[in-house]
Amino acid sequence: MERFDKNTCLAMRKRLIGKSCRLFFSDDPVKIVRARGQYLYDENGKRYLDCISNVQHVGHCNPAVTKAASAQMELLNANTRFLHDNIIYYAERLAATLPEKLAVFYFVNSGSEANDLALRLARQYTKHNDVIVLEHAYHGHLTSLIDISPYKFRKLEGQKDWVHVAPLPDTYRGKYREDHPDPGQAYADAVKDLIGEVHKKGRKVAAFFAESLPSVAGQIILPSGYSKKVADHVHAAGGVFVADEVQVGFGRVGSHFWAFQLQGDDFCPDIVTMGKPMGNGHPLSCVVTTQEIADAFAATGVEYFNTFGGNPVSCAVGLAVLDVIEEEDLRRNAASVGEQLLNLLKQLQTKHSIIGDVRGVGLFVGLELVKERAQRTPATEEASELVRRLKEELVCMSTDGPGENVLKFKPPLCFSMEDAQLVVGKIDRFLSDMAAKEQNEKGSASQGIA
Amino acid sequence: MERFDKNTCLAMRKRLIGKSCRLFFSDDPVKIVRARGQYLYDENGKRYLDCISNVQHVGHCNPAVTKAASAQMELLNANTRFLHDNIIYYAERLAATLPEKLAVFYFVNSGSEANDLALRLARQYTKHNDVIVLEHAYHGHLTSLIDISPYKFRKLEGQKDWVHVAPLPDTYRGKYREDHPDPGQAYADAVKDLIGEVHKKGRKVAAFFAESLPSVAGQIILPSGYSKKVADHVHAAGGVFVADEVQVGFGRVGSHFWAFQLQGDDFCPDIVTMGKPMGNGHPLSCVVTTQEIADAFAATGVEYFNTFGGNPVSCAVGLAVLDVIEEEDLRRNAASVGEQLLNLLKQLQTKHSIIGDVRGVGLFVGLELVKERAQRTPATEEASELVRRLKEELVCMSTDGPGENVLKFKPPLCFSMEDAQLVVGKIDRFLSDMAAKEQNEKGSASQGIA
Repeated sequence: MERFDKNTCLAMRKRLIGKSCRLFFSDDPVKIVRARGQYLYDENGKRYLDCISNVQHVGHCNPAVTKAASAQMELLNANTRFLHDNIIYYAERLAATLPEKLAVFYFVNSGSEANDLALRLARQYTKHNDVIVLEHAYHGHLTSLIDISPYKFRKLEGQKDWVHVAPLPDTYRGKYREDHPDPGQAYADAVKDLIGEVHKKGRKVAAFFAESLPSVAGQIILPSGYSKKVADHVHAAGGVFVADEVQVGFGRVGSHFWAFQLQGDDFCPDIVTMGKPMGNGHPLSCVVTTQEIADAFAATGVEYFNTFGGNPVSCAVGLAVLDVIEEEDLRRNAASVGEQLLNLLKQLQTKHSIIGDVRGVGLFVGLELVKERAQRTPATEEASELVRRLKEELVCMSTDGPGENVLKFKPPLCFSMEDAQLVVGKIDRFLSDMAAKEQNEKGSASQGIA
Repeated sequence: MERFDKNTCLAMRKRLIGKSCRLFFSDDPVKIVRARGQYLYDENGKRYLDCISNVQHVGHCNPAVTKAASAQMELLNANTRFLHDNIIYYAERLAATLPEKLAVFYFVNSGSEANDLALRLARQYTKHNDVIVLEHAYHGHLTSLIDISPYKFRKLEGQKDWVHVAPLPDTYRGKYREDHPDPGQAYADAVKDLIGEVHKKGRKVAAFFAESLPSVAGQIILPSGYSKKVADHVHAAGGVFVADEVQVGFGRVGSHFWAFQLQGDDFCPDIVTMGKPMGNGHPLSCVVTTQEIADAFAATGVEYFNTFGGNPVSCAVGLAVLDVIEEEDLRRNAASVGEQLLNLLKQLQTKHSIIGDVRGVGLFVGLELVKERAQRTPATEEASELVRRLKEELVCMSTDGPGENVLKFKPPLCFSMEDAQLVVGKIDRFLSDMAAKEQNEKGSASQGIA
């Protein structure tokens, strides 16, 4: 199964692949040779529990997806300039999961391509140029998306004059917290104020871009009422609301198919972008919008052609993923296992003071570590150490958030109750060890002073 | 095999898919349900000869490619943050086709993603911002690439101040033609002059971007010596040379693996982008560059992560494509069938005055139609009519060029001598019909006047 042993593979990777492309656990990367469901197997057959592969949504190497891809590859994989049933049927199936007004589709290859197209649609429709984004947001690796991703542009060229950053509606660490009577209103008002500032500069807002659940920002749950109020302000300014569902769509939240639906039936975005889990690893993404926005884009008379987007194989894969979500009732699993995971972690929080916050919905869960609870100082090193120890015991986990102190759970939706218990048990043990070690060091230190 | 009949499919497509996404033969689109090699089959089993699917490089539904994809999908399709052999082995195989200095790879999902990343690499390395492109160039559908694609931006928002357009080195229709003693030198001097103008504005050139054989511009063959001289001028200005091989790489030109190699051994681009044929329809693309440029990009300390790019399945597909090119000796086929096709078309040119120019290399061939040869006025309607009639007789062909008067041959590389004879025979007959019809109309008209 192996062509190169791990050390050779690593040395060749360092030589042949751009160093900007990083590895997980870079001090001692993992070589994975096969996977199934929520399990990854290394070159020695060691099995890792995968808490992070949100892309392999219906499980690694799901046989129904493989079968659908193979069958269509044997038959046809031409481009969308020829008529084909798959793209039509797939669009219809997706439309059934969305509010009625979101009914015109563009199929592309990646979440980045989807967000870039959303930007083009917004600008063409509104004839405005500026974009409002949330602090610490990440919307993709393309030039246009680095520009609207504070997570990236703050480390690079900086902020463009057409980009405006609204506060992250983080009720644990932001300006308005859990003790605020209506944080949704307060954070939406901040967007309203920002729009006012944009207008004072003589500029106009094309779009408000936000992940329906900000992920890189640290597994944030938007406060109730936020999106509808923001949409009202953005619409009043002649802009559109873009919901980035690239990470969080397709039933990850359990209760709903789309994470934006958590904000209630009175909220509907103007553009939704989707990606990662859509093809279970196959490069497949999508933009859906309203007839009016699509018509404005078409009115330029300029063709939009995406070479691979929406091809019969990609759509067959997408259809198979939808089928598996339904047939294996994965939304219900995400809801129940997610709830169990949240409960277990909240129990840990009563025991370990390092756990500042536990939050989540479905299988989108964050565990935020703090040095102490009053100041909420990010426990960055501790989070990193926890990930390292979990990896030693064959659990793949990662951190995120501005302080890199939030452990992110975003596993394949087939993640089980037993998986949740296993990983929480290990976290409990490691946090106890770390606390004991800290006590010992304090003890030694005070003895040393005495 | 069909889910919807053709009319239903068309009606649903119009409703569900953005109208900016166009169909071939939009008056009467073709529904294709299966394909093999260079043949497409519609819902009634009618077989079309495919002269245009450059993406399905080693033939539609090549079984070796399907088998490789299926086998890897069954095993693993995780992302590149885990170590895996496929990406390494594939990079090594690609490196063997390239000059030694092009040895650091980034795998992405589309030619557009590749060109956008090339732009980011060029800017980061040079610390300059401006880009020189060729007239009528097309480099992709993303915001950043519309900006550097005169083919698109002239129809949209117009030209950005950081974009500079050099003349298309077209020796049939451009400023310097076949009678010029050294058009390569003359067109390269035009780039030098343009760089001078850029500098006068106090601006600096990050990159010169060009397809190694401009395709949308009308199947243009760059004149001898052009690229090396341009590269010298661009390097002197502190910029880099980006060769866009998205359409024309992977042996299409027959004699060489990469089209830029037609410009001689003394020319080497700094960045090469590749795409369309790379995965035979699977979304797979790549950027390759030098160690110096890759190091400058990594020096920002910012990660480049592409969710699907370089995954084990994509790389398995890419490797299978390379194997088929070698095992089926497709470069030799492209060279010999391409030469035969050129010869047959040149014979037609002696017979039909509407054929202004025949040009090409390997299976990249253009047939340029003109109203009369002296003025070279594009015969746009006639080209369109020829494509329509070819389609009626089950041959898929398209036009391109600023005048939409160039018939483009860019078939799968398994295109045969018989295929070439068949299509040229049909073109001969249609051009004879059209000439006879014109004669009759002239006759009638002069009788009418008389």
